[in-house]
Amino acid sequence: MEKFYQQFKLGVLGGGQLGRMLIQSAIDFNIDVHIIDPSPNAPCANIATSFTTGDLQDFDAVYNFGKNCDVVTIEIEKVNTEALKKLRDEGVQVFPEPEAIEMIQDKRIQKTFYKENNIPTSPFILIDNKDEIKNHTDFLPAVNKLGKDGYDGRGVQVIKSESDIEKGFDRPGLLEKFVDFEKELAVIVAKNSKGEIKAFPPVELVFHPEANLVEYLFSPADISPEISKKAEKLAMKVIDKVGMTGLLAVEMFLTSDGEVLVNEIAPRTHNSGHQTIEGNTVSQYEQHLRAILGMPLGDTDIRIPSAMVNLLGEEGYTGEVEIEGLDDALATKGVHFHLYGKKDTKPFRKMGHITVTDVDIKALKDKALKIKSIVKIKSK
Amino acid sequence: MEKFYQQFKLGVLGGGQLGRMLIQSAIDFNIDVHIIDPSPNAPCANIATSFTTGDLQDFDAVYNFGKNCDVVTIEIEKVNTEALKKLRDEGVQVFPEPEAIEMIQDKRIQKTFYKENNIPTSPFILIDNKDEIKNHTDFLPAVNKLGKDGYDGRGVQVIKSESDIEKGFDRPGLLEKFVDFEKELAVIVAKNSKGEIKAFPPVELVFHPEANLVEYLFSPADISPEISKKAEKLAMKVIDKVGMTGLLAVEMFLTSDGEVLVNEIAPRTHNSGHQTIEGNTVSQYEQHLRAILGMPLGDTDIRIPSAMVNLLGEEGYTGEVEIEGLDDALATKGVHFHLYGKKDTKPFRKMGHITVTDVDIKALKDKALKIKSIVKIKSK
Repeated sequence: MEKFYQQFKLGVLGGGQLGRMLIQSAIDFNIDVHIIDPSPNAPCANIATSFTTGDLQDFDAVYNFGKNCDVVTIEIEKVNTEALKKLRDEGVQVFPEPEAIEMIQDKRIQKTFYKENNIPTSPFILIDNKDEIKNHTDFLPAVNKLGKDGYDGRGVQVIKSESDIEKGFDRPGLLEKFVDFEKELAVIVAKNSKGEIKAFPPVELVFHPEANLVEYLFSPADISPEISKKAEKLAMKVIDKVGMTGLLAVEMFLTSDGEVLVNEIAPRTHNSGHQTIEGNTVSQYEQHLRAILGMPLGDTDIRIPSAMVNLLGEEGYTGEVEIEGLDDALATKGVHFHLYGKKDTKPFRKMGHITVTDVDIKALKDKALKIKSIVKIKSK
Repeated sequence: MEKFYQQFKLGVLGGGQLGRMLIQSAIDFNIDVHIIDPSPNAPCANIATSFTTGDLQDFDAVYNFGKNCDVVTIEIEKVNTEALKKLRDEGVQVFPEPEAIEMIQDKRIQKTFYKENNIPTSPFILIDNKDEIKNHTDFLPAVNKLGKDGYDGRGVQVIKSESDIEKGFDRPGLLEKFVDFEKELAVIVAKNSKGEIKAFPPVELVFHPEANLVEYLFSPADISPEISKKAEKLAMKVIDKVGMTGLLAVEMFLTSDGEVLVNEIAPRTHNSGHQTIEGNTVSQYEQHLRAILGMPLGDTDIRIPSAMVNLLGEEGYTGEVEIEGLDDALATKGVHFHLYGKKDTKPFRKMGHITVTDVDIKALKDKALKIKSIVKIKSK
């Protein structure tokens, strides 16, 4: 146990906002966090125990970074998994397991995995290029997704009808049947190295209509206890089938007939769990640390209803940040800022988030909308 | 407003656990925190934006550290206030105000201040040396306190009767009438630079019988709403009379006839406010930042009842830390560790704390006692 307290070295691939909040949590356990990220101005650069600038997809960069760590984890899944496997062979603990990262990195393999494991998901067809879409016009409307490298709204294209096919991707990907969902839900679930599994209560996501990014999140989701249980159980089944250690974010569709379908998963802390810092007994960040370090998992229950408002860079503004409405927002009860330390803004860039808490769910939603209208990330 | 977001420089005199938790909060606002502390291994050393090793009572050390900061604050009151005054004269914002620090640094001036401002406190007599105590045997039993340099249980001596006088301090100090109190309470109160004042609900402190250190804390205190209101109002009066900006911890005695007396004050974040991180809408650390940076103060209400258990170094153990019972404690619902990153333990050293939360106050107290009996800070 003393390892946690004395110069324990945790290495994290990626130094964005997720790594930043993980560091804040790691300080509570006195864990040294070492970060590698391609950008020298990454949000973790100034607060990590050590910061290495390096390409996460480069074998040598990842291997050399990880070999001095006790445990290596990720905060982004686009990393060199061969290096992670070699580190594991040499005795470094690597969580999540590299094979889980590989499966998730490629949406084609991910979707196939759901099918093989009887995990409910929308119907899909694997395609290799744009031309192949033309063979499946009866499958439209559909969503064309790139197999690899899709992220934060990129690599996703809606193909409503034949005339949209030209917008499709000309690389290996898939066509997903368009789901006319009622709500988008997310469940964060953790599994520790001893096999213990715990899920956070489902949250409800509201996406930005253009940017395909989460704009609001409400916890708990406004769904029946039965649907809630169903979503939690599904997330627990997914992490168990994936066979990974650490945190898994499971994004889901709730259809109008009460079906819950897995949309996408991410094997790490996630935007849909930010509000756990203020709203739940244990935060997703502490839960991830507990999971990968073999500690008992924490209780995930909601202590107070919460909403999360993503602070996206305002359209029409690029450059050095200026925040509008900070004081007005801070004067509102239960408003908690998380600024990510990014120097420059650009349209739809994730610059921070605000968690709003309120015992009254109706008041909470009103407050979240009000805060969203007050706070703007602009440039000078 | 952009100052908060772009390379805003906050300097803190002292780099202990209070500074450490302040940094964790400052990360949320993207504030760079620069620390000066005499110990190169201070709890803030590895997580501050910059860390300077220096004597906090040395004029040059404090002045040179502060002159490049936008705002300077403290996490310990034993600092060179002349340097702070010069910094203020040169345009650096210094909160709390150096005059407030000076008044509080000397318990003789502090007590006289209460008397002059009609702030209820126990009767006292200023004394210059041990011999003078003999002139006041009719005032015994009393507590002999050093005017300066008392801290964490040092500089305090109970003089029950004439035979104890030899144990008294032979330096300027005071005799305080021994108060046969029912409870010890604490209220943390903040005033921002715009004059806004907000108090946290009173907490109840349980001291270690030997070490004169807080061993447990319960929030809220088990007192009537009237006493609670009285204690809050008293704390608000004190910060107003002190005329300071920032956070003030007001320790109080509740007597058996319902009187609330001010015992001691500290112009900074305080051990009696640790539980606000998990238990209250705003934490004392964020509240301090809001106060000294001119932001609106946050709401202080209790979100969930909480207890704080100080993790003091176990008697009989000195050296490199080993934590006993960490996993058992973590498996208990609502248990949150805060380890301070101190490499070596010694008897009664503050090595960390645990916050326990529970909606049920009875269950909360049982849980806190259980955790206390499970977790031990020992050495290898």
